[in-house]
Amino acid sequence: MKPVRPRARAKLFPTPEDAENAFYDAFERGDLAAMMAVWAESDDVVCVHPQGPRLVGLDAVRESWAQIFTGASQVRVRTTEPHRFNGQSVAVHSVIEMLGPPGEASPTGSVYATNVYELTEGGWRMVIHHASPMAEIPAPDEPAAPAHTLH
Amino acid sequence: MKPVRPRARAKLFPTPEDAENAFYDAFERGDLAAMMAVWAESDDVVCVHPQGPRLVGLDAVRESWAQIFTGASQVRVRTTEPHRFNGQSVAVHSVIEMLGPPGEASPTGSVYATNVYELTEGGWRMVIHHASPMAEIPAPDEPAAPAHTLH
Repeated sequence: MKPVRPRARAKLFPTPEDAENAFYDAFERGDLAAMMAVWAESDDVVCVHPQGPRLVGLDAVRESWAQIFTGASQVRVRTTEPHRFNGQSVAVHSVIEMLGPPGEASPTGSVYATNVYELTEGGWRMVIHHASPMAEIPAPDEPAAPAHTLH
Repeated sequence: MKPVRPRARAKLFPTPEDAENAFYDAFERGDLAAMMAVWAESDDVVCVHPQGPRLVGLDAVRESWAQIFTGASQVRVRTTEPHRFNGQSVAVHSVIEMLGPPGEASPTGSVYATNVYELTEGGWRMVIHHASPMAEIPAPDEPAAPAHTLH
């Protein structure tokens, strides 16, 4: 008999929440291997960084995170105000990301993120990360913002 | 016997694709009632218009579309490059929206959209619409864009 070998991809993430925790943990630590372990191995995965292009496929996604982790100093990421839609094989979490340097209490930037997870043979994996900068809320005495040009 | 009456909310959208088609049709026609028939009746629905705030709950979502449809002239919306993750009760479509005035072939604006649908008692309904402006692609002889400040 052949010896029992561990499967190439263990079920790392039994729930979408586990995958999301791993995503933000890898993001904070700038750990590319851990980040890519969260993503599904698929040509269909989609990643939109704030104000960035829509990246499609695992290679483009990996390259973008490699670039982010190379250039950036360490970042603290906390998520807040989650709205979750968890199906049996597809799950979506809308969150607000609060980003800032480690050790500082108040965030220096905030981002709206829609995170989509799919149940694969290797557990729950990320298939979409769509992030866009938080809209600036005008002060109460400022006039309302003009209508959006797009929609 | 009581006469058979139609259910208050018929199963309007048997598939996520039907809901998506109805969403963009209502968007093009500026039809608020048709638009709101696509959305799930839930306090958890989330809508981010391009560069806008994250709106949560049906009332805030309705108000935003009412404002858009009041101010705007008619718009032509075509979607392209779909990536779909369809589960049994939750479905997600990542698309590129091409927007422009009716009758013109070339779009005047493009938007990345992540559309999330949930299977409700009344069929598939939208629960998240996250839209953000398409990143401008630099011309080949321009230097690469600087690193994003957020991520």
